Amino acid sequence: MASFFVTTRRVEFCETDMAGIVHFSNFYRWMEQAEHEFFRSLGLSIVNHQSGDSTIGWPRVCATCRFESPARYEDIVQVTLMVQRIGVKSLTYDVHFTIGDRFLAKGTMKTVCCSMERDQPLRSIEIPREYTTELQEYRAEEE
Amino acid sequence: MASFFVTTRRVEFCETDMAGIVHFSNFYRWMEQAEHEFFRSLGLSIVNHQSGDSTIGWPRVCATCRFESPARYEDIVQVTLMVQRIGVKSLTYDVHFTIGDRFLAKGTMKTVCCSMERDQPLRSIEIPREYTTELQEYRAEEE
Amino acid sequence: MASFFVTTRRVEFCETDMAGIVHFSNFYRWMEQAEHEFFRSLGLSIVNHQSGDSTIGWPRVCATCRFESPARYEDIVQVTLMVQRIGVKSLTYDVHFTIGDRFLAKGTMKTVCCSMERDQPLRSIEIPREYTTELQEYRAEEE
Amino acid sequence: MASFFVTTRRVEFCETDMAGIVHFSNFYRWMEQAEHEFFRSLGLSIVNHQSGDSTIGWPRVCATCRFESPARYEDIVQVTLMVQRIGVKSLTYDVHFTIGDRFLAKGTMKTVCCSMERDQPLRSIEIPREYTTELQEYRAEEE
Repeated sequence: MASFFVTTRRVEFCETDMAGIVHFSNFYRWMEQAEHEFFRSLGLSIVNHQSGDSTIGWPRVCATCRFESPARYEDIVQVTLMVQRIGVKSLTYDVHFTIGDRFLAKGTMKTVCCSMERDQPLRSIEIPREYTTELQEYRAEEE
Repeated sequence: MASFFVTTRRVEFCETDMAGIVHFSNFYRWMEQAEHEFFRSLGLSIVNHQSGDSTIGWPRVCATCRFESPARYEDIVQVTLMVQRIGVKSLTYDVHFTIGDRFLAKGTMKTVCCSMERDQPLRSIEIPREYTTELQEYRAEEE
Repeated sequence: MASFFVTTRRVEFCETDMAGIVHFSNFYRWMEQAEHEFFRSLGLSIVNHQSGDSTIGWPRVCATCRFESPARYEDIVQVTLMVQRIGVKSLTYDVHFTIGDRFLAKGTMKTVCCSMERDQPLRSIEIPREYTTELQEYRAEEE
Repeated sequence: MASFFVTTRRVEFCETDMAGIVHFSNFYRWMEQAEHEFFRSLGLSIVNHQSGDSTIGWPRVCATCRFESPARYEDIVQVTLMVQRIGVKSLTYDVHFTIGDRFLAKGTMKTVCCSMERDQPLRSIEIPREYTTELQEYRAEEE
């Protein structure tokens, strides 16, 4: 059975633009912040210092967002995140943004597990088991 | 024949994150900024005050970006924008991000022409002819 | 007796820069966000639509921040706001940023109450009494 | 004789807020960007990898900005930077923001030269001679 991770964001003044609505680029940040909060809720961190100079990081491979309705200053936006797919090296999320029963936007985001070493190119690696075990529960049902 | 609009962006320090690379959310801003610069190059503005309280604006319907290679501080990123489709009420762009012959990312962005009136919901409208005439030349070839 | 308004902010990944610490510009945003949260706690809003096209807003006149120690990803920063001065048309705040007993930064911010009318220059006005009454309690003691 | 470093910034849509003007936090970013551009103009970089894991960085000690007049979308803002003081370990700048003969804002910013080592606290160091020699020419006159 699928589980959801739900969090909220209150729209800050500096996130609005002169059209009086939240600038669309903030939805991508909120997606990422929901992912990071989700990791924390599992006792994990998106930034994981390994031995030596190596760090595990999760750069984005792709992020999409479709916008249906705008958010405005002081709105409380519900962000619902679901793990759509756990790959060998990558994770794919679906993210829904709502205010009450008004649907704002739907995003998807794919991140890849990487070893990030100082002055080295990013190198994708298999997701460590400590992550996959925890993430399993939040996986969306197979369609 | 298709035409391209090309601009460049130098990566600012505040656009990097602790992973030492440009935070992915900036690519969406760069896409939008390329669009706005493109409009200016045609003698148009993305913000167009009409008579009375009405303003024509172009909120995003959808924006996607696929990331292949990171950009770093002081890199000069070439942003190439092409009009993929001119709809009755919407525009769709393809955007390529490169540094020299290194490909960074590929984005697509769909915006819809809206009448934005104070304290009113956004309302999509037909793109005024002054825009479509100018945009025509930059349309990608039909596939 | 002086009262304090206290809130917290968890450092987001996108607020860090390549030096691995929070980019300094975010402290100014946090100051403003604390002010807005403070207003909400008093049942007020920083954005106040008046009759007709007029809106009361609070643009900044001056903001200063002195930095002593950096904040990092996932740190929980305590933001303490105190009303330093209630002028006829302006408010001045002191803001302290701390993590536990580590002092991060100290800011001051002066905002002016303005009538913001569409396509008009900003015009400073006397702070409406509904605001000053509520703010009084949070005023710092006279030195 | 004092010299000035002058650059310009066109206001981006995403830098505006719902009040229709540039969000004040962007002025601090522009100050920093002018400093970085100034360094580049001298053949220097604000990020300087030294031998081993050590990097020279320039975190901010203090930044102030006084705002007189707002900037709006597509305005071209002139940013004039002057080195106010070259200390043993720190630099202090004055920055003026103008649009034509309209004065927008005046900032000051103090940065300290630091050795930034991985997982170590920031440590202030004497400014290397390669910097001071170049910076000397841009110093404001003694008052």
